[in-house]
Amino acid sequence: MSDTRLERYAELIVRAGVNVQPGQTVFVDGQLEHAPLVRALTRAAYGAGARLVDVRYGDGHVRKAFLQNVADDVLQESTPWLLARFDVVFDGNCYIAIAGEPEPDLLSDVDPERLGRARPVEAVKRQLKAVNDRAFSWTIAVYPTEGQAREMFGEPDVERLWDAVSYAMRLDEPDPVAAWHAHHERLRRRCTQLDELELDALRFAGPGTDLTIGLIPGSRWIGGGSETRDGILAFPNMPTEEVFNTPDWRRTEGTVRSTRPLALGGTVVRDLELRFESGLVVDVQASTGADAVRGQLAVDEYANRLGEVALVDGTSRVGETGLTFFDTLYDENATCHIAYGTGVPFGIDGIEELSPDEQRERGINVSAMHTDFMIGGPEVAVDGIKADGTTIAIIREDTWQLT
Amino acid sequence: MSDTRLERYAELIVRAGVNVQPGQTVFVDGQLEHAPLVRALTRAAYGAGARLVDVRYGDGHVRKAFLQNVADDVLQESTPWLLARFDVVFDGNCYIAIAGEPEPDLLSDVDPERLGRARPVEAVKRQLKAVNDRAFSWTIAVYPTEGQAREMFGEPDVERLWDAVSYAMRLDEPDPVAAWHAHHERLRRRCTQLDELELDALRFAGPGTDLTIGLIPGSRWIGGGSETRDGILAFPNMPTEEVFNTPDWRRTEGTVRSTRPLALGGTVVRDLELRFESGLVVDVQASTGADAVRGQLAVDEYANRLGEVALVDGTSRVGETGLTFFDTLYDENATCHIAYGTGVPFGIDGIEELSPDEQRERGINVSAMHTDFMIGGPEVAVDGIKADGTTIAIIREDTWQLT
Repeated sequence: MSDTRLERYAELIVRAGVNVQPGQTVFVDGQLEHAPLVRALTRAAYGAGARLVDVRYGDGHVRKAFLQNVADDVLQESTPWLLARFDVVFDGNCYIAIAGEPEPDLLSDVDPERLGRARPVEAVKRQLKAVNDRAFSWTIAVYPTEGQAREMFGEPDVERLWDAVSYAMRLDEPDPVAAWHAHHERLRRRCTQLDELELDALRFAGPGTDLTIGLIPGSRWIGGGSETRDGILAFPNMPTEEVFNTPDWRRTEGTVRSTRPLALGGTVVRDLELRFESGLVVDVQASTGADAVRGQLAVDEYANRLGEVALVDGTSRVGETGLTFFDTLYDENATCHIAYGTGVPFGIDGIEELSPDEQRERGINVSAMHTDFMIGGPEVAVDGIKADGTTIAIIREDTWQLT
Repeated sequence: MSDTRLERYAELIVRAGVNVQPGQTVFVDGQLEHAPLVRALTRAAYGAGARLVDVRYGDGHVRKAFLQNVADDVLQESTPWLLARFDVVFDGNCYIAIAGEPEPDLLSDVDPERLGRARPVEAVKRQLKAVNDRAFSWTIAVYPTEGQAREMFGEPDVERLWDAVSYAMRLDEPDPVAAWHAHHERLRRRCTQLDELELDALRFAGPGTDLTIGLIPGSRWIGGGSETRDGILAFPNMPTEEVFNTPDWRRTEGTVRSTRPLALGGTVVRDLELRFESGLVVDVQASTGADAVRGQLAVDEYANRLGEVALVDGTSRVGETGLTFFDTLYDENATCHIAYGTGVPFGIDGIEELSPDEQRERGINVSAMHTDFMIGGPEVAVDGIKADGTTIAIIREDTWQLT
């Protein structure tokens, strides 16, 4: 791994991802194994004028002991020092989270029920509010680890993973930050095109797929970077290739066949097929891993309804690699996807004022689950349907059709 | 390195060092490179009934970037999240700090003046108060790193370092925790013996050494473990072999020759010789590193006067190894030592009520400096001198003489 590549990557995350402004505090959360990137990010953030860079290292083994030992109330506790740190993060500063699982099997013998419940509830609540309020710049980016490479390639070929990550992150461009801004404009243009169509529904048609997804009137499409309330453009996900929306959880009809493998925390689901009636999943088939999906769909009353639909075409650099990354940050950006479970209603005005019941009333799904899976590809046509029944081609042969 | 040794070491630190009680929160601070010990400590602490184990990993490279980049006010800032964490640490909980420098040369090109000033002032203030109030259990123990082994042996022979650490920590005993408690009783007995003598001064005599150090009336000798205000016995330093006192900074007279090399952050001082007049260092000689000592003695007005005298005999396991560890935690426990700079007046009643000027009036030195160096050995006789001039043999040929 050349230092130049690592430095370029860190520079991109700092300059485009969170877009550090002089005087800001930059918070970096990573695992021990991410130290080379954490260090490069720290130097790059100071180079961009950060007042202070604060690093918090996680350790999967310490986490495992926590999951196996603490009492139930501690499992969901937010420590005063975590909250005190978040208060400063959310006060107009920058937050970089590094993904990339160093030891994918580490938690395989932890009680999944405890694993599911383990989250600092109050801290997460404040984080979601701060995200909705666009109170801070944040991004998630991956650090290639041997653990992930082994999952992907059957051997710890980190170099090969780095090549894929570099391509997906546009590090091969002469000016990656400028390339990201151009990419942002392209995705924003797609959102505008879709918003102007005022679509009532989307239709996916291809081998094993004939699916119609009803949309919520007035819900805007989201994609690319987003501006904080201080007017700073940041990219919450790196990479990002999608434009997405929250569909009406009551109005999905038909069948869909997944076009890429889906990694579900240890299990790989292949050839997933779902059938929907009035928004509800009524049948689940797969050549492997169907039970894992069925388990997720049963987590709560609304887990078995859609919460997201996202459009991605053949220009997706993640998709071009042809790889399954076993990491949602990448896999969901490979091609068109939908998610069962809770909605992502950033494009709906006044959403932060609505109770869960009021959100459902508007058509927004609310659930503890949210799992994306990939349904697009060269053989899948995507159409928009207007309220008057007019049909508009959106994607054909993996190519965006709107101009 | 056998897991058994690591687990035994962690168990000793948890059971004897901080003496974890069920329901306590255990805080562990270490460097990334200390992860194996951090993980073992985490498991051992949960095994002892900890409610929660909170780990904070430091990273020398992040620290270096901090030292090189932040503004002067940030250099001494205590973040709200550091203070929030310390507030819980000091509320009757346990704090384990892991020493052992992974990369001893890492900060060699950092401005030493900034390095000296870089400390979270408010957090340190609260910590010193909590230590004085015996508000929490704490300990410092080393994790053997390749960096330290290279300093000690000229090669990264971590196994050899582990052997020395295991011996110094009494891990070879069938029941190390019981061995530490017996060791505690031995050191406490020495303190009682010395307190009962009501000495007015100590005298060290040997090759190149004829030094008389005046003591402060009523100042008790300290050694071994100490009890928190909740009555929990903990060992703040692991290992610990000394019994120590704060001498009168105005009453040291004569010459002293160091009997072991002294590591001063990069420089090794050899054959150090100091001459004192009325408590003041008036001459500094050394075969290497004299200027480093002269620099420290000039840090402030009181740096060139004594703040500690400590007695250690030939039963010191650290001393028996014959090694210089380049780590004060070990090196000061090898043999008798004195420290120039600030006092350690734990044995003086009402000390927490006294201003710096009032402390100096009582004979206690107050300075920003505190450097221990080793002056004992088989050829150095240590005597106690009572107010009436009576002389009592305390150490002869490295053997404790009081019974």
